Amino acid sequence: MNKAQLVAQIKKKESYLCVGLDTDINKIPTHLKKTGDPVFEFNRQIIDTTYKYCVAYKPNIAFYEALGTKGWESLQKTLDYIPNDIFTIADAKRGDIGNTSKLYAKAFFETMNFDSITVAPYMGADSVTPFLEFNDKWVILLAHTSNTGSHDFQIIEDKNEKALYEAVIEKSRQWATSEQLMFVVGATQAERIGHIRSLAPDNFFLVPGVGAQGGDLEAVSKEGMNSECGLLVNSSRGIIYAGSDENFAQSAGNAASQLQNEMKGYLNKYI
Amino acid sequence: MNKAQLVAQIKKKESYLCVGLDTDINKIPTHLKKTGDPVFEFNRQIIDTTYKYCVAYKPNIAFYEALGTKGWESLQKTLDYIPNDIFTIADAKRGDIGNTSKLYAKAFFETMNFDSITVAPYMGADSVTPFLEFNDKWVILLAHTSNTGSHDFQIIEDKNEKALYEAVIEKSRQWATSEQLMFVVGATQAERIGHIRSLAPDNFFLVPGVGAQGGDLEAVSKEGMNSECGLLVNSSRGIIYAGSDENFAQSAGNAASQLQNEMKGYLNKYI
Repeated sequence: MNKAQLVAQIKKKESYLCVGLDTDINKIPTHLKKTGDPVFEFNRQIIDTTYKYCVAYKPNIAFYEALGTKGWESLQKTLDYIPNDIFTIADAKRGDIGNTSKLYAKAFFETMNFDSITVAPYMGADSVTPFLEFNDKWVILLAHTSNTGSHDFQIIEDKNEKALYEAVIEKSRQWATSEQLMFVVGATQAERIGHIRSLAPDNFFLVPGVGAQGGDLEAVSKEGMNSECGLLVNSSRGIIYAGSDENFAQSAGNAASQLQNEMKGYLNKYI
Repeated sequence: MNKAQLVAQIKKKESYLCVGLDTDINKIPTHLKKTGDPVFEFNRQIIDTTYKYCVAYKPNIAFYEALGTKGWESLQKTLDYIPNDIFTIADAKRGDIGNTSKLYAKAFFETMNFDSITVAPYMGADSVTPFLEFNDKWVILLAHTSNTGSHDFQIIEDKNEKALYEAVIEKSRQWATSEQLMFVVGATQAERIGHIRSLAPDNFFLVPGVGAQGGDLEAVSKEGMNSECGLLVNSSRGIIYAGSDENFAQSAGNAASQLQNEMKGYLNKYI
């Protein structure tokens, strides 16, 4: 999916919601455990009730990898089930030397058919650029994440008071245009998101940390939006575990609908 | 495997060689492609001819992941086939927020049974510490890698002229002892390896980049060893693709034997 198509979806659905499919086998409602593939069955029902309200799905790959080959099968089936007009994000946080990153790119963009993958910047240019060789496929580079450990290294400043996350944004923008490069910016960094927008005016930001991690959706939207919206705000646990009984999927749909409604307001207010 | 056991293996085999099982389906000798699982068959024969000369095997997970569920099966079979007294490294370069890193830890330490995993430091403490909750399991943290992109961010200096890779080593040593924490230090950083040893006197270093990437084994050994050796030097392509015909495994064994013989000399010379 290219940027124009993504922006069109945001306008059409009046939403910049990304639903995080961090499906934990231990948190799935009991009645689904009798099915042949409980993880896929859970995802399928969540997708059925949420797809109208979101523009992206983001399976966190760890949750599938932890289940071995069966997990990868559930992931592939989930990916195949997601409607084609919804942007897909492999939240894998990969990054390795050139020939290896190429293989990861092949795994997520070809063997599977994700639109994008999250990538860690520590190893530099040649760990990122192999992901950029695929048409209409995206790198979503970790810039300033939402966890407490984000303060260990990401905000270290160099002699010119440029923080590491700022160096990552500045340098990586030389590797790709905003047609292929997004940044992960945690919602818990709301006080910095306006500043980060000034560093990357036309790049989309994937914003985790709203909800369970305490980020504020209005602050993020106000400070982070650009004229194309430029945000994909992720909610995982707040949606997929909104309910835990037989009506879990309807509860998830309601939670997604509420967020979409809130987002509709911010789109009107801040663009 | 704990540190004492690893050091004992190094002494017994007079080797600190790690064989990188970066098995590329496109580079496997033709005659193996008729077998049911060519990747495993290749690895099995490589292990048969090299295990006497090495103390560690390091499958790069990307090569398996690129093949989908079949690749994960080949990886599990390979891991099961590696003799128990050899240290195993999942070269996965993972790292995510706490609950997700815990799942990666579970995947590589429990679902599979690796001794260690390579981890990227960008997200900080809470992305690394979940891997440290397992007995006799190791984190091998990226410090200063062997690729050209290692110069993009890893050597950025703060106001006190402390480079990012130095900050990573210093801070992470507060999270774990040298019984659970190693560092990735590229052989192409030979001029810095003595300095890095001074920052982490008792930690093992996993050193990629000898051979295909141009690192110098003697320089690395001279500058990087401590009294327990403290090095695992990896060779991937130089060993597993030493030959490409029906005698490929014997060629790999010869290449591993040559490196072991060289290492034996350095162990005597520099410890």
